[in-house]
Amino acid sequence: LGPDMAARTGAEDRNGQLTKPPGALGRLEDLAIWYAGWRGDARPEIKAPQVIVFAGNHGVTAQGVSAFPAEVTVQMVANFQAGGAAINQLARAAGARMDVHALDLDRPTADFTQSPAMSEEEVVAALRAGWRAVDPAADLLVVGEMGIGNTTPAAAIACALYGGDAADWTGRGTGVDDAGLANKIRVVREGVALHAGQGDGLDVLRRLGGRELAAMAGAIAAARVLRIPVILDGFICTAAAACLDASIAGALDHAVAGHQSAEGAHGALLERLGKQPLLSLGLRLGEGSGGALAIQILKGAVACHSGMATFAEAGVAEG
Amino acid sequence: LGPDMAARTGAEDRNGQLTKPPGALGRLEDLAIWYAGWRGDARPEIKAPQVIVFAGNHGVTAQGVSAFPAEVTVQMVANFQAGGAAINQLARAAGARMDVHALDLDRPTADFTQSPAMSEEEVVAALRAGWRAVDPAADLLVVGEMGIGNTTPAAAIACALYGGDAADWTGRGTGVDDAGLANKIRVVREGVALHAGQGDGLDVLRRLGGRELAAMAGAIAAARVLRIPVILDGFICTAAAACLDASIAGALDHAVAGHQSAEGAHGALLERLGKQPLLSLGLRLGEGSGGALAIQILKGAVACHSGMATFAEAGVAEG
Repeated sequence: LGPDMAARTGAEDRNGQLTKPPGALGRLEDLAIWYAGWRGDARPEIKAPQVIVFAGNHGVTAQGVSAFPAEVTVQMVANFQAGGAAINQLARAAGARMDVHALDLDRPTADFTQSPAMSEEEVVAALRAGWRAVDPAADLLVVGEMGIGNTTPAAAIACALYGGDAADWTGRGTGVDDAGLANKIRVVREGVALHAGQGDGLDVLRRLGGRELAAMAGAIAAARVLRIPVILDGFICTAAAACLDASIAGALDHAVAGHQSAEGAHGALLERLGKQPLLSLGLRLGEGSGGALAIQILKGAVACHSGMATFAEAGVAEG
Repeated sequence: LGPDMAARTGAEDRNGQLTKPPGALGRLEDLAIWYAGWRGDARPEIKAPQVIVFAGNHGVTAQGVSAFPAEVTVQMVANFQAGGAAINQLARAAGARMDVHALDLDRPTADFTQSPAMSEEEVVAALRAGWRAVDPAADLLVVGEMGIGNTTPAAAIACALYGGDAADWTGRGTGVDDAGLANKIRVVREGVALHAGQGDGLDVLRRLGGRELAAMAGAIAAARVLRIPVILDGFICTAAAACLDASIAGALDHAVAGHQSAEGAHGALLERLGKQPLLSLGLRLGEGSGGALAIQILKGAVACHSGMATFAEAGVAEG
């Protein structure tokens, strides 16, 4: 399930003939060639981006890890459905279809400081929900999330996968104060200790993650099979994706990092995955917001690649 | 000619009520408030962005400062008019109107190592051409340029305005080799020395700049009067804009930096102007390409600001 090397080579050839100095479009050139390879089309178009927002609730909120009450998850799902959230505006601006999947909001995951967040059945159901949410006709995918408390599982996943101290991976999320941050670090540390040394990336996802994280991972995996390139969003999305990468090397080769969020550990997480973010605008909202904004960058890259004239077509000297 | 403070305050109030944690949209929030202030509308929309590309030829190309022959300027103007250049694709992707103005291409500026690049009459004509090119009905402006050899005048302007060695401000442009770079540095050094200590920013623009640089400056000034916010493009656009800033403090308050280009000194130039770039994707094409790509970021910011529901409207708890 790798890129189509003929399409990729064709795209590289075309890139070298376009009316610009070699390399003058910088990362846009790399992005267009990467996209062409995964789509199997040396001169592709982006016509049908899909944004999917998954929502879940977290037992670990009982430990007081969030600045917002857990009820906000379901309230925000209603806001997504009514079109009032940031992601609605950003998906529309990017010309993307947007879907919202609320995953058993009335049945939060278990508090991972006490037991695994999800049973085998639960994590498989969430992975499957994500897998099935992907439109096979989409040509670009952004997955985002909403789940009060979910920077805590994301930090725990990163700490479990990559080691280091819980404090290295734990940030303020939607805005906890110093005492809240200290408490959050304690919770992450306890969770990681309780589940240490157990299985691969997907087992980490089950024990420390949440339904919306598992669904994002399922959707990213489905996109690989469907040859749909993916733009990762922020810290929580990247933590979910990292579970795939930890299970299968190269599992995120069809994904780029849409942005680096203001959540402190996101940069370190992206570095572990070898992903350089396209944007760095201090976002820390989740919902797929940074990924949706980055759709425009990828669209611009592909528009240049596929729409520009060659030196020969335009009668421009190559220097 | 400052921002409308009532609209700005109204936008700040609205921003605080939107369904997101405070500050979670990062720089998008600042951008939307900035835009609202300059447009005089607390809940603005971006419906009519304009991209203008100015083209000029440079006498200093006789010194061998570019990897491309000077004929490429007029060839690329034809490419812009035929829709085949990168900026055509990026302007279309951003929903922007695009205009091209070729400025006396058959009459290059004078070689600034010998005499001022332009006479008073010539610089005024170019400033006026820029001023008149701005559509008063536009609600956002990107100015870009095409002019073989024009990173050399841009470097000379930056060096004249901010001091330091010519080598600090001179880069490889479209791709000169080491010998070409050394030659370019010599040319910049000679030009800056010849015109040292002569007048203000606009005089620097006349002596060391070029018609397309003067036109960009004229368009940026016109946009200020018309309350049209501006997105700056790369090194050459920023050097032209810096001449306005050097003449009148605050002359660029209605402008943001669209991107940081790969041309080495662009970052230092933006720092002198106190502008943090929105994008940093290694572009070094000019044409307004980075500015046009950044339209999408500003559109996303304004779409969130003006389209999102408030906590009260959505029935979401404020935490």
